[in-house]
Amino acid sequence: MGKAPNVKVEFSEIECIKHLKPVRDALFVFGGKWKLQIIIVLRSGNKRFNELQRTIEGISPRVLSNELKDLELNKFVKRSLISENPDIYEYEITEYSDTLKEVLMALGAWGRMHRGTLINDK
Amino acid sequence: MGKAPNVKVEFSEIECIKHLKPVRDALFVFGGKWKLQIIIVLRSGNKRFNELQRTIEGISPRVLSNELKDLELNKFVKRSLISENPDIYEYEITEYSDTLKEVLMALGAWGRMHRGTLINDK
Repeated sequence: MGKAPNVKVEFSEIECIKHLKPVRDALFVFGGKWKLQIIIVLRSGNKRFNELQRTIEGISPRVLSNELKDLELNKFVKRSLISENPDIYEYEITEYSDTLKEVLMALGAWGRMHRGTLINDK
Repeated sequence: MGKAPNVKVEFSEIECIKHLKPVRDALFVFGGKWKLQIIIVLRSGNKRFNELQRTIEGISPRVLSNELKDLELNKFVKRSLISENPDIYEYEITEYSDTLKEVLMALGAWGRMHRGTLINDK
């Protein structure tokens, strides 16, 4: 049994590591299950906390709250007070979140393609 | 204090939800911190377990092992026995992992752009 031939060498070792870092950076900032989902929902318009929670299936209030704080810190999302007594806040996406357009398009396209292959496999 | 104007409405509510599902599907399959990193490293050539662990900073053997099993299940990665006594396995990416090219490009481009803005902010 010999070493299998490397049919897929497209990057050299160094180029691979060069690509690894920016992808790590990206995943560090908006990786995980929820952040991109929140951004997608906010792209359809500003939302209150409860509206976000209703729209994003399976997210708990605690997790949503933490994710929103992270997104604010990284300048993807802005929170504004829209009325007082009781204080009501609304979340909106910033210009900076527009930089995620390509990422969202690529992920959406992949998800649609993948679901297509699952259906064809049946 | 009025309701802030919705400057970012690009999707209708329904279009937003339509986009949410494929992105959720994609994140379900290869979301998290490690899977895409493993795929990037394997794009530079077949690797043994220890080589992968050395290259991917911060991954534990247990996590790497689980991630590789998931990646095999989802047909992104193939494991082959390359020598016996002691058995040595090598991991290689499949044709199907080529479908992630656009996603990896978009994430890499975003990571580079983001690092650029952090440096400029200093």
